[in-house]
Amino acid sequence: MKVLIIGGAGMIGRKLAERLARDGELGGKAISKLTLYDVVPGVVPAGARMPVDVKTGDLPAAGEAAKLVADKPEVVFHLAAIVSGEAEQDFDKGYRINMDGTRSVLEAVRAAGHVPRLVFASSIAVFGAPFPEAIGDEFFHQPLTSYGAQKSIGELLVSDYSRKGFVDGVSLRLPTICVRPGKPNKAASGFFSNIMREPLAGAEAVLPVSDSVMHWHASPRAAVEFMRHAATIDTARLGARRAVTLPGLAVTVGEQIAALKKVAGDKVVARIRREPDPFIEKIVAGWPRKFAAQRALDLGFKPDASFEEIIRIHIEDELGGRIA
Amino acid sequence: MKVLIIGGAGMIGRKLAERLARDGELGGKAISKLTLYDVVPGVVPAGARMPVDVKTGDLPAAGEAAKLVADKPEVVFHLAAIVSGEAEQDFDKGYRINMDGTRSVLEAVRAAGHVPRLVFASSIAVFGAPFPEAIGDEFFHQPLTSYGAQKSIGELLVSDYSRKGFVDGVSLRLPTICVRPGKPNKAASGFFSNIMREPLAGAEAVLPVSDSVMHWHASPRAAVEFMRHAATIDTARLGARRAVTLPGLAVTVGEQIAALKKVAGDKVVARIRREPDPFIEKIVAGWPRKFAAQRALDLGFKPDASFEEIIRIHIEDELGGRIA
Repeated sequence: MKVLIIGGAGMIGRKLAERLARDGELGGKAISKLTLYDVVPGVVPAGARMPVDVKTGDLPAAGEAAKLVADKPEVVFHLAAIVSGEAEQDFDKGYRINMDGTRSVLEAVRAAGHVPRLVFASSIAVFGAPFPEAIGDEFFHQPLTSYGAQKSIGELLVSDYSRKGFVDGVSLRLPTICVRPGKPNKAASGFFSNIMREPLAGAEAVLPVSDSVMHWHASPRAAVEFMRHAATIDTARLGARRAVTLPGLAVTVGEQIAALKKVAGDKVVARIRREPDPFIEKIVAGWPRKFAAQRALDLGFKPDASFEEIIRIHIEDELGGRIA
Repeated sequence: MKVLIIGGAGMIGRKLAERLARDGELGGKAISKLTLYDVVPGVVPAGARMPVDVKTGDLPAAGEAAKLVADKPEVVFHLAAIVSGEAEQDFDKGYRINMDGTRSVLEAVRAAGHVPRLVFASSIAVFGAPFPEAIGDEFFHQPLTSYGAQKSIGELLVSDYSRKGFVDGVSLRLPTICVRPGKPNKAASGFFSNIMREPLAGAEAVLPVSDSVMHWHASPRAAVEFMRHAATIDTARLGARRAVTLPGLAVTVGEQIAALKKVAGDKVVARIRREPDPFIEKIVAGWPRKFAAQRALDLGFKPDASFEEIIRIHIEDELGGRIA
């Protein structure tokens, strides 16, 4: 079985590639080839149990997606995207990659004619405030960003192409990924990860919002599991409704900090500096806080066990088990 | 003020053009020019109180939409679409006109830079079964046709381009139009109108479903009023949620027939022949029956007063007041 990861150099793409390379299989089927595609070269996972092709290119360019699926990969993960902040600043680029790029993947797959499983990374950004207390599985999509609009359009396309039998698609609305590895980033949501990752690494982190702010989280490891599960689930169970809001953990910043204290102690927690920023407070107030993701649970998608578990996953996967 | 109707040769486009031509104004502003654009030539309304331009062309073709908005019309009605049945049969044509065409209008308007009011004709086809008893304003969009997917994408684009300040858009989810004038058509929904129009004109009509089937209706006259209201409403009241489910009448086929009897008598009703068709019954079972369109009511959109009124409108507007 051939597997293609579009967006294979990104954070989730890389972790998914590492997992698949280590397992050598997906859903009980041996992977004969893994292709990582992105705008920058992906990294061949060490000790991969199959040949790994690394390709780069411009996804919506004419003929590009067709080349990518020419060898008819049985499973395609489409994770490539211009992220929220950039899609908001560069309207044309966001639509070109997030909308036209997704459509070009679907059109290429339709032309190839082999009806692969397609796992499309969507986002809770398809929802826009005001929200009910917990957002249900039938709440409408009223995005408040271009990124959210583009992801919502992607979902509609994946569902319609699936209904027509051109692809066997699943769209996954990922929670915010926490603890996100790497450098502190300037995304408005960055602090949710920064206040965990930086103190654990011995550095200070700024908390710009109050402790009562609640948000919807999943670990990178859970995200990889969501992808693998979506690639192997019986899609007859989804019917025509191919988009799934994934289960996360709804925790407040205060609960995040309490979990950090439990796992890593007072010394680490003391590295969080409270510096309220009304601008970020306001942005965050418009974000989803909590979902009733019952459908995903029924479909076998599993949330992290607890926020402490999310922190332990970070320590294990990113810090080699050591806290600074 | 210049007004452009894209899809100006269609049923609603024609009636809207006649109304605007007769009024000479919209929202208290004199109309200096009315342009009717479609794939086939529109008809200049008799006695129009302003110059009327009739143009034909292929909307998504390169440069076409830009030409259309070159004179910066202050109000654009975008009603052009490949209808449901055809969009389902011809996948490429449906996406080309309904999705690419709508995007090309938005891009042209964005390039023109004058931020016109845009009224986009969407549809209750953005919703897909299973439904709650009455579909609320926050029910999600899970279309079961390519047409519904394309309209839903159009709504997302109109909202996002509006949020960015490129256009001042309103998307209207029209109820099924009844009584639809013209020849009996083969659309699965045709019978809702056929069983009214044909008997009133002295002809037989076939009713393929049971009397208990409920559906969501508005008269052509109400549809024109929806368009005019949307063109003049204060869009600040819509916020970021630019799509509105319009108020219709939820009536059963039995109630339709009772209304026909009241307005036109037993002789006319006797021209309805019951001929159950399980195929059509099944299609219709997947359609919306009823909405709680509270938001539209709050925004001042008005449904027809009763189904009898819908029949009287047809007799007045299409039959010159005479029943056969």
